[in-house]
Amino acid sequence: MAINKIGREIPDYIEGIGELKSYEGPFSVEPAKRRFGRKISTITPKQSKILEDIEQAIIETGLKDGMTISFHHHFREGDYIINMVVDTIAKLGIKNITLAPSSLNSVHAPIIEHIKNGVITKIETSGLRGSLADAISKGILEYPVKIRSHGGRARAIEAGDVKIDVAFLGVPACDEYGNANGHSGKSFCGSLGYAKVDAQYADKVVLITDNLVPYPNVPASIAQTDVDFVVKMDAIGDPKGIVSGATRYTKNPRELLIAKYAATVIKESGYLADGFSMQCGTGGASLAVARSIKQTMIEKDIKASFALGGITGQFVEMLEEGLINKLYDTQCFDLTAAKSIGTNPNHVEIDAGFYANPHNKGCAVNVLDIVILSALEVDTEFNVNVITGSDGVLRGASGGHCDTAAGSKLSIIVAPLIRGRIPTIVENVNTVITPGETIDVVVTDRGIAVNPLRTDLIEKLSKTNLPIFTIEELKEKAEKIAGKPKAIQYGEKIVALVEYRDGTIIDVIKEVK
Amino acid sequence: MAINKIGREIPDYIEGIGELKSYEGPFSVEPAKRRFGRKISTITPKQSKILEDIEQAIIETGLKDGMTISFHHHFREGDYIINMVVDTIAKLGIKNITLAPSSLNSVHAPIIEHIKNGVITKIETSGLRGSLADAISKGILEYPVKIRSHGGRARAIEAGDVKIDVAFLGVPACDEYGNANGHSGKSFCGSLGYAKVDAQYADKVVLITDNLVPYPNVPASIAQTDVDFVVKMDAIGDPKGIVSGATRYTKNPRELLIAKYAATVIKESGYLADGFSMQCGTGGASLAVARSIKQTMIEKDIKASFALGGITGQFVEMLEEGLINKLYDTQCFDLTAAKSIGTNPNHVEIDAGFYANPHNKGCAVNVLDIVILSALEVDTEFNVNVITGSDGVLRGASGGHCDTAAGSKLSIIVAPLIRGRIPTIVENVNTVITPGETIDVVVTDRGIAVNPLRTDLIEKLSKTNLPIFTIEELKEKAEKIAGKPKAIQYGEKIVALVEYRDGTIIDVIKEVK
Repeated sequence: MAINKIGREIPDYIEGIGELKSYEGPFSVEPAKRRFGRKISTITPKQSKILEDIEQAIIETGLKDGMTISFHHHFREGDYIINMVVDTIAKLGIKNITLAPSSLNSVHAPIIEHIKNGVITKIETSGLRGSLADAISKGILEYPVKIRSHGGRARAIEAGDVKIDVAFLGVPACDEYGNANGHSGKSFCGSLGYAKVDAQYADKVVLITDNLVPYPNVPASIAQTDVDFVVKMDAIGDPKGIVSGATRYTKNPRELLIAKYAATVIKESGYLADGFSMQCGTGGASLAVARSIKQTMIEKDIKASFALGGITGQFVEMLEEGLINKLYDTQCFDLTAAKSIGTNPNHVEIDAGFYANPHNKGCAVNVLDIVILSALEVDTEFNVNVITGSDGVLRGASGGHCDTAAGSKLSIIVAPLIRGRIPTIVENVNTVITPGETIDVVVTDRGIAVNPLRTDLIEKLSKTNLPIFTIEELKEKAEKIAGKPKAIQYGEKIVALVEYRDGTIIDVIKEVK
Repeated sequence: MAINKIGREIPDYIEGIGELKSYEGPFSVEPAKRRFGRKISTITPKQSKILEDIEQAIIETGLKDGMTISFHHHFREGDYIINMVVDTIAKLGIKNITLAPSSLNSVHAPIIEHIKNGVITKIETSGLRGSLADAISKGILEYPVKIRSHGGRARAIEAGDVKIDVAFLGVPACDEYGNANGHSGKSFCGSLGYAKVDAQYADKVVLITDNLVPYPNVPASIAQTDVDFVVKMDAIGDPKGIVSGATRYTKNPRELLIAKYAATVIKESGYLADGFSMQCGTGGASLAVARSIKQTMIEKDIKASFALGGITGQFVEMLEEGLINKLYDTQCFDLTAAKSIGTNPNHVEIDAGFYANPHNKGCAVNVLDIVILSALEVDTEFNVNVITGSDGVLRGASGGHCDTAAGSKLSIIVAPLIRGRIPTIVENVNTVITPGETIDVVVTDRGIAVNPLRTDLIEKLSKTNLPIFTIEELKEKAEKIAGKPKAIQYGEKIVALVEYRDGTIIDVIKEVK
């Protein structure tokens, strides 16, 4: 057992998982490995890649007991692929599989049955939601889930920490030789940024599509040179669950107040200058901050060099209006963004490694100026929880949270001080996804706290009319209103390991009683 | 010593090179390795990649005696990079370097001095020309040069047969973080298809540019995540040597006759159907064939799915006219092509691995229907020489010759029967680059020969008025006019090894006396 840099107890070793390294700071790991190389396999000129169905694909890839399979989460709650593939693996009698998708959603509840019947014995993912998350929090899996950030997953795959035997990737448009993108078809999702990494590193790659298009399907997010097999099906997802319509602006006065404060912090920080860059979430407050930034940009004739991350229609609009020069997109968050990426050459698809892998020669978050992030909880060390609820149950995703916080020049958390009568600012967060030393400012509806490490920002912001407090003062305000939150009753079993983007363990999550 | 499948004597082992495998047929090698993984190295958020000059870059990369350096040949005869870098390496006292560019040109003659002074001791390249090629043919290098095809080089790099310690890549447009393309700037060259492979596999990557542009420079041929350092210079090449103006159509009656025959072969072959694909060279006859194909396409309302390879303005025109759906471009052969790739989204840049690596999951030549290729010599086994002249001296490049011949459904050699009083069709070619079993038809101004392996084509073409002969008959025709060519007087020393695309040795080239 070790105590890591943020004071969490981390086991040195877990049976079935191996040795664990403790988190020692955001840039403390110097990578010493070589990049992972998948098995070279070749397809000769007259060989077809088209297979009948998923069952044939599983057989042809040689999938066996104990192997690792991967998927992407671009179809979100509309995804059919994971359940179909795992059902078929179960039917074929294959067991003891590690499920390593880029993320999991509520729609993947049927995986519970495949954990019970021994088909799935390990899971590695960015997020978990719904009844599958509940079951895991209650200890249904023998081995702890590994939670990784988007950049951390790309790092792990590129370093060979995750060795994908077979990637099963749903693709909205694909030709017979495996050139695929997310631009068209009934299941269109826009960027395939997470899938790109799997396609490049998995030993075997199976594309599953409901939209076979003529060769060559270019520009391609996934290239023929990475694809072993193509399976055509009637439906790979539910369009209603894949992309949401246009994002609505919040009218919630509390969110609007948070946004107003955050926008002022940004303006006063000095980072809102010509050529700046930004990433925003999809929450009401985040979007309202972006809208306010846009107003300032127009008034002061400021242009952004790029916007990054999951992209919304709001950024697409700003791109089209000439306020943003380029969009770097790993994941399209709405219909407008998904449509834009297929048509606007300045809306550029990037993979998760380019986005946020800390162990390449310079990922995009490294050059990000401003990021607006959400939080379930923030503690007095500025550590942030975005994965476990106030009941200690898994219900979120690591996503790009810790990646962008580490890379950006100004990371801002926007959150209400109290949420459903539960304080957001607490003594100790249940689970740390993002270490406090990478968080610069916390903005709530009842006040703003600046990380004491950022004396430059404290100096700048203390000259304004903003309601600046220490983080302890915010915590006390919250407790005064909602009371001190009751400690969660955890069991002894570790149900999840939270891996920091560099591969060290920043926290563990225990079973809820 | 072994005799390979085409009857050439191949040593089992060469000191300083290692064991050699003999060529055993175009698809005989089943790869068993893992893809090469370069050393993982990381750049943290505030780190700059900009260096003062090439000298600083060499020092920062840690280049040492015995290492391998690589370059691309997209600047052709206008390239300043290779000479500048090797001069600086020499100045720093570093010796015993392996020079592994994608190709070498006449402009690289100064390398002769660096061979003499022990800086460069090994060379691996696709081609060699001018006085450097002469000197190597005379035995100036201790170890034989390795000649690789474009697909073979990508294979070798991806398999780790060539381990690049430092790639020095000249880029016409680049931002400070290393996103680069060939689309703009005074040294613009269009596609950077060969450079892309080096950037992805070299341990250290240095970009050298004369055109620093604002971040982010996208779409990028080379991504920031692959780049360690960026050096800005006044000039990286001579624009006049980099891209030639618009290609002129030939008026040579012999070339026009060859083109007429070849176009008829294509029409009668059955491959000129809607959705077909093609690659053509830049020779007068090749371009004239393409022009004739274009006429047929218009008359019969046939559209091509894609054109491949080095791309000329002729194909760009056909793309713009809607006759070709997409261009897959590793290298822009003229000004029109170089301009188009930066502006037309259907003109798609591909890397050499996607183009022709036989050991990935399906390269582009695998789905190529028709290729028109040139030849210095063809022998009665249909083996083709494109690298040594009638004097046995190196004067060409392997290029994509053997790659496209192996992948395509119809490979056609166009060549005059006699060239400068020397027969083109001979008993035995001096050097085999492309094995005869991958060549389907040889078209000369005095007759056409079809490979006996292609009984289907013989049947189809014998029904036409085309002057069909056996390859032996063509050889005799040539000898009747020009006499039997005198055997070249070679010495014993092997000056070059010709590697087939799969990594086996198809031929050796000996010193000329």
